[in-house]
Amino acid sequence: MALVHHPVHDRDRRIITTAITNLDIHDIARSSRTYGLAGYHLVTPVLAQRDLASRIIGHWRSGEGAAMNDFRRQALDPVEVHESVAASRAAVATASGSEPFTVATTARRRPDQVGCQALVAEAAASPRPLLILLGTGWGLADEVVDRVDRVLAPIQGAADYNHLSVRSAAAILLDRLFGDRE
Amino acid sequence: MALVHHPVHDRDRRIITTAITNLDIHDIARSSRTYGLAGYHLVTPVLAQRDLASRIIGHWRSGEGAAMNDFRRQALDPVEVHESVAASRAAVATASGSEPFTVATTARRRPDQVGCQALVAEAAASPRPLLILLGTGWGLADEVVDRVDRVLAPIQGAADYNHLSVRSAAAILLDRLFGDRE
Repeated sequence: MALVHHPVHDRDRRIITTAITNLDIHDIARSSRTYGLAGYHLVTPVLAQRDLASRIIGHWRSGEGAAMNDFRRQALDPVEVHESVAASRAAVATASGSEPFTVATTARRRPDQVGCQALVAEAAASPRPLLILLGTGWGLADEVVDRVDRVLAPIQGAADYNHLSVRSAAAILLDRLFGDRE
Repeated sequence: MALVHHPVHDRDRRIITTAITNLDIHDIARSSRTYGLAGYHLVTPVLAQRDLASRIIGHWRSGEGAAMNDFRRQALDPVEVHESVAASRAAVATASGSEPFTVATTARRRPDQVGCQALVAEAAASPRPLLILLGTGWGLADEVVDRVDRVLAPIQGAADYNHLSVRSAAAILLDRLFGDRE
């Protein structure tokens, strides 16, 4: 799973770069670890932001935090920081030996979207690793969504409101895709 | 849904009171609104903490924040602050006219737990409103869990790790209980 901080939209659909937040790192790392993902990537072109994220991760992975809280260390162990979606894709390809099957998530309806069940079936039948892109801000830019292999349908709750936090959306998505439901 | 800050456990199973956090208010309010809940309660016995939560909610509900961000206002509209689980239960009873069917959540296995499907069926057949208790820190104290109508089974992912954030756990739970899954 990759959390993308650029290119994403702001509320007026302009292309922006959002700031990395500490809680996005931790919450989505813990969800990724819970559902057994091979990795979690933070994507931002801003070098100072990548350095900040690396320092936070380092604190919990091998610094004082690791001794204090082992379950945070376990969650942050597979977290990586990349400068672009292309770099994230390339890292998955290098680690796994094949180009990732890349999936975009969005809170908007599009004609080309697939559901979680269909995606799980397709991914299981493919030898390629799955890379799921999550957008921060007001969502992934069209230039990203238009170039992926599949676009997931938005998470629809019981009500006419879909402004979940990206942390909540990531958790629900992982549970729908990989959870052991009774 | 109620987010309980006391009585909860710390990592050594002592009873503590945790601090209200801004992001717990927003994330779980947004998830609650997405899944059409009638309300979201913040529970803490600490008066200064209840005042803080009320100020944050007021900012987005009727202050500067309301004009700036209508989807936050919508999410925070039904949020209430209560001093205890008993006060939260009493508020639901007053609003709905009957005692809530109260459900505890926990990350630990217990012999008396039910799954989400069973709970949905049971709640749908009951005229009583549902009140779902989420624990902060290391989870709801036994004195709370031992007194509810039902205890939900822990959320199990694909891996042997269940340290989801309470924000992520709330989102997954609401989706399992009330989501429109394909």
